[in-house]
Amino acid sequence: MGGFKHLVVVKFKEDVVVEGILKGMEKLVSEVDAVKSFEWGQDIESPEMLRQGYTHAFLMTFEKKEDYTAFTSHPSHIEFSATFVTAIDKFVVLDFPSVLAKSPA
Amino acid sequence: MGGFKHLVVVKFKEDVVVEGILKGMEKLVSEVDAVKSFEWGQDIESPEMLRQGYTHAFLMTFEKKEDYTAFTSHPSHIEFSATFVTAIDKFVVLDFPSVLAKSPA
Repeated sequence: MGGFKHLVVVKFKEDVVVEGILKGMEKLVSEVDAVKSFEWGQDIESPEMLRQGYTHAFLMTFEKKEDYTAFTSHPSHIEFSATFVTAIDKFVVLDFPSVLAKSPA
Repeated sequence: MGGFKHLVVVKFKEDVVVEGILKGMEKLVSEVDAVKSFEWGQDIESPEMLRQGYTHAFLMTFEKKEDYTAFTSHPSHIEFSATFVTAIDKFVVLDFPSVLAKSPA
């Protein structure tokens, strides 16, 4: 919670084996210490009107923005990204300092 | 971390006072116990090619999907949503059980 967030929302191409992509992503975050935490999810049931075709959200948390910047230039990230971009139909990426407005009890 | 997530990514209309919307959202989550945690952020510097025009991400965490379902029909949520939809230019909403693939140390 809090920290600097890297949010990626995507729609994969139809013929993509998503499990393979997920494994690559988990390997990537395990290799890079700067990634403090990583969670993701797949929405398979919300109305299409809300999802706008997007299916997956990936959220990485960094302690600070500099750690995210270092991550983007890490060789493992560069290698993974090259594969990732070929697998997606459309995407939205947002990077932002997170404001924690309500904390877990 | 973990739990059931409600992710909303938006681009606000140009004449909207975002601070007012944020206050309404913070009031909403403070009023509804089912919302376990709430964080948000604004991306003002990533390349437009990555952001696709979107500027804000809002992420609410619920203990379980049933709590999110209850939230959507809560009177405070219905009232807030009616205002919110008039303020946004475009949006993506994803609701999903979160997979925590890397935990904070």
